[in-house]
Amino acid sequence: MSEYSIEEITADHLAHITAVAQGLAGDVRALVDATVRTQVGDDDVAAAREHIAAATALLRREQLPGAFGIRFSATAGKRNWGNAMVGLRNPVAPPMHMSYDGEKITGTVDLGAAYEGPAGLVHGGILAALLDQALGSAAENAGVPGMTGTLNVRYRQATVLGPVTVSAWLDRTEGIKSFAKGTVSTADGVTVEADGVFILPRWARGQSQEDAVRTVGEG
Amino acid sequence: MSEYSIEEITADHLAHITAVAQGLAGDVRALVDATVRTQVGDDDVAAAREHIAAATALLRREQLPGAFGIRFSATAGKRNWGNAMVGLRNPVAPPMHMSYDGEKITGTVDLGAAYEGPAGLVHGGILAALLDQALGSAAENAGVPGMTGTLNVRYRQATVLGPVTVSAWLDRTEGIKSFAKGTVSTADGVTVEADGVFILPRWARGQSQEDAVRTVGEG
Repeated sequence: MSEYSIEEITADHLAHITAVAQGLAGDVRALVDATVRTQVGDDDVAAAREHIAAATALLRREQLPGAFGIRFSATAGKRNWGNAMVGLRNPVAPPMHMSYDGEKITGTVDLGAAYEGPAGLVHGGILAALLDQALGSAAENAGVPGMTGTLNVRYRQATVLGPVTVSAWLDRTEGIKSFAKGTVSTADGVTVEADGVFILPRWARGQSQEDAVRTVGEG
Repeated sequence: MSEYSIEEITADHLAHITAVAQGLAGDVRALVDATVRTQVGDDDVAAAREHIAAATALLRREQLPGAFGIRFSATAGKRNWGNAMVGLRNPVAPPMHMSYDGEKITGTVDLGAAYEGPAGLVHGGILAALLDQALGSAAENAGVPGMTGTLNVRYRQATVLGPVTVSAWLDRTEGIKSFAKGTVSTADGVTVEADGVFILPRWARGQSQEDAVRTVGEG
């Protein structure tokens, strides 16, 4: 199991590593899209694979032993850069960009060919995953973080690939349980609704709220 | 919106394009993992980015205008190669490998650093997405395909990054609704349970079952 860790980073260094990570992950996301959609012949594929192998070898010269984990610092707050939905250095993440308005969270994301389920439509599971992330972040943002206990998703209409908005908010709390709700919307209106229960794990209870946030992270 | 399409492919050509797609997507998955876990300095990152851009440019010489869609042929059956969870040419897909034993579906998948949520654990949303895929496939495999109507996921314990088994089966049908259930298991036992309702879309009703499978695809 990788780590929750605390590290100190200067603002300058943070700006630098953010730019490097975003640039690299952005390039790999473009490659992922090109891989799904390519129609080129075998020679071009073979040449592309040589470049990809060379890039991988360069990046593997020094690697983390496992996943990125979740890191905290006074400068950067929480860095969940490996997160599968929002991680800025994770090419699997679309990524969803989160903004906060009081206790409401809005996630914006442009879902391309790599997020397909039914033909031309966003995979239902990806929509569930974006909602899980947003609902968990809404609970955390409201000061009652937790791991996902249950997630219920209702698909109202098809979600066409393209720009999508995810909204989430804390509905209520009951002891160690936080109840959050949210929606996915497109130009067609609300396409998906969800509610979830987020539970502070046993091993994180009895700590200060700040420490709990540090050790729990999001869904 | 991309397409459901029917195409004819010889067995030899199918074997060839399968190998090409798997090789390319496998290489890009390795690059994704290396991107999340790299610790190298700026010079190596810059050199890697040049290779990645070169690979992308090669693959973009000829591209599909949109997503891969879902393609059918007598030789290959259904090809959902762009699917975000199981698509063999989609580097976002871990991918999950599905096998069928009567009406039970088993999906096996090894979830690395790119699928992280809480530190060292699989993202709850990725688990929901794998279940959505498996439950929808179970309904389809039982002859009652549909788009996801609702998906309810219960997280019983943490799912550590690594090998995971997804099981799914059709529970019952009611008219146009198929009810499926499933679990995620690891060496720790069952970690997640889910049930879902899959609904034959209005525009696919009144067709033969074969045509309905062709036009619906999975979750």
